[in-house]
Amino acid sequence: MSADLVPETRVLAVASHVVYGHVGNKMATLVMQSLGCDVAALNTVHFSNHTGYRQFKGTRATAEEIRNLYEGLCMSNLTDFDVMLSGYAPSAAAVEAVGSIGQDLQRKAAARPGSFFWVLDPVMGDQGRLYVNDDVVPAYKNIVQYADLILPNQFEAEVLSGIQITSLQTLAKAITTLHATYKIPHVIITSVQLSKLSPSQENPSPNSTQNLLTVIGSTTLSSGKPRLFRIDVPAIDCFFSGTGDMFAALTVARLREAVFADRNPDLRNTKSWVSGDDVRPTELPLAKATEKVLASMHNVLEKTNEARDVELAATAPASGGSEEVQKKEHLRRTKAGEIRLVRNVRFLREPTVEFKAKEWEGDY
Amino acid sequence: MSADLVPETRVLAVASHVVYGHVGNKMATLVMQSLGCDVAALNTVHFSNHTGYRQFKGTRATAEEIRNLYEGLCMSNLTDFDVMLSGYAPSAAAVEAVGSIGQDLQRKAAARPGSFFWVLDPVMGDQGRLYVNDDVVPAYKNIVQYADLILPNQFEAEVLSGIQITSLQTLAKAITTLHATYKIPHVIITSVQLSKLSPSQENPSPNSTQNLLTVIGSTTLSSGKPRLFRIDVPAIDCFFSGTGDMFAALTVARLREAVFADRNPDLRNTKSWVSGDDVRPTELPLAKATEKVLASMHNVLEKTNEARDVELAATAPASGGSEEVQKKEHLRRTKAGEIRLVRNVRFLREPTVEFKAKEWEGDY
Repeated sequence: MSADLVPETRVLAVASHVVYGHVGNKMATLVMQSLGCDVAALNTVHFSNHTGYRQFKGTRATAEEIRNLYEGLCMSNLTDFDVMLSGYAPSAAAVEAVGSIGQDLQRKAAARPGSFFWVLDPVMGDQGRLYVNDDVVPAYKNIVQYADLILPNQFEAEVLSGIQITSLQTLAKAITTLHATYKIPHVIITSVQLSKLSPSQENPSPNSTQNLLTVIGSTTLSSGKPRLFRIDVPAIDCFFSGTGDMFAALTVARLREAVFADRNPDLRNTKSWVSGDDVRPTELPLAKATEKVLASMHNVLEKTNEARDVELAATAPASGGSEEVQKKEHLRRTKAGEIRLVRNVRFLREPTVEFKAKEWEGDY
Repeated sequence: MSADLVPETRVLAVASHVVYGHVGNKMATLVMQSLGCDVAALNTVHFSNHTGYRQFKGTRATAEEIRNLYEGLCMSNLTDFDVMLSGYAPSAAAVEAVGSIGQDLQRKAAARPGSFFWVLDPVMGDQGRLYVNDDVVPAYKNIVQYADLILPNQFEAEVLSGIQITSLQTLAKAITTLHATYKIPHVIITSVQLSKLSPSQENPSPNSTQNLLTVIGSTTLSSGKPRLFRIDVPAIDCFFSGTGDMFAALTVARLREAVFADRNPDLRNTKSWVSGDDVRPTELPLAKATEKVLASMHNVLEKTNEARDVELAATAPASGGSEEVQKKEHLRRTKAGEIRLVRNVRFLREPTVEFKAKEWEGDY
């Protein structure tokens, strides 16, 4: 076995498929496979490209089709998954179907604590805006209680917790609420731009001129209270579709790796992989995993940004101001911004951790 | 760039998707990505698992859905493919849809010879038996003329050429006919068990007690006649689903690599990458590519066979003779025979060529 692979892991990944580019399962599958995971990919939509292009063709799977594919796996005894990663589902009924799959896998693993772990990315929206139907929100609120780890972005954390995040205090309160309301063992809020929060709460980094992206994570204490860590990484000044899916997929592989490498050999046989109360936030497998995840992401996005600039410089910009020209230019820029994954997998396999987890106590 | 990656290659892969295991696009995508290709995956079916299990759930894409996904790519200028790899399509109309996609990409590339290459795997059947509807055969006969390379197995070569392969002579005649009838520049017949051909034509290998699998390839001469090579590899005594898809995907990557490394730097700008008549069969990029392809496959299938034996020894066989028990045992053995790919990608990236192409003249 190569040293750069994580322990053998069978993953059921439930998310969207696009023909072109890397988002959803098209991203998650390759990321996890690159780290040595065996990935079963149950695709919830079949689109030509991601929606950032503002146009696409394709079809959505119905809830029945999703249940049916899972039923096919059950029929042939193909459900020996160690982890489920669930992402975008195209309707409330589809979210329910995904929820019932997760619960069924949990039931099957109930006699062997820690043998199955569900990572749920509650894909609902971003930047203050829902991009799913309203009824998807209560559907997620019904199923997140079954997940072991959820990965909301700032907006999704607000939606699930009911708390508007305007400061470090409200951020901590939102995580506390997520642990308490849904009994979720692990939470990572995947993108908080603290510089956009109220000035008095601004990021205390000495290099305050550079935008930092902050990732906040927590594994619950036995009291139900959060055990918080934060990692700050320099933000790359460009929006790339699929970063959330990349984060989730890397987290699956790296968390399992960290749990298997934990100084407590029984952690992997502990329900939901929750470390004892004596483990400091920065020593949590979740924190160690997130450090590697962010290192890989930072490297790949840097390479993507460079390649994007080269591609944009090499292709002629559409000139003129007509609607048709503007659309063409948007398509050109969106294509140039596709995450460059296949030729950068070495950064997934061999991350150089530069940004370390810090404890975050006394702030809340 | 890593030394173990092939030149940058954008591939449109059109084939089946399975949630669990590695066949069709689920195999081809990972194989090509592992070698550094950027793969757009247009899935023609969405099944829970491969049909070797004798049961599955899922849906087939209609011809309209396939055309529609491609139309989505066209709309957003996402058709800058270097290669198309087309595999299983679930109906005659779907085969026609795939054919029109290939032709459209050829038209788009017509001004730049060699800039687009179509590898077509005419998936129709095996071992003397069709596993598609009868009307799929004429659908393939209509489109193979547009392909640059076709990869039939022995049975599919018989179907397309109308010649029954019972000897080395009839095998050579079938390839001659494929070149002549369909004007196909390159042909590889992916599995011929010469030991099953008539005794007088048997494989002349000194190690005649071991079953050999023979792969026969040819790149046409300017006269239209074949330029034949053969590679013999020890057969692994087990059937694995997805080997054809693995072969096709490896061939895409390795052929492009060989063409880019050819001593004729203009070959890559030559229509269909057909080498000049002075190039010996064993010096063809197709022959060099096939050597690497077979090396990788042999290694991965050896590892698969070992892992299969371990898995079968570790899981209890279903005992008893009832139909239900026999079915369970079939499922267990089929699952154990899934190709072990994710943790063996090093064999894809760094093949050790042991089985060399040999010229095959004077035999026909």
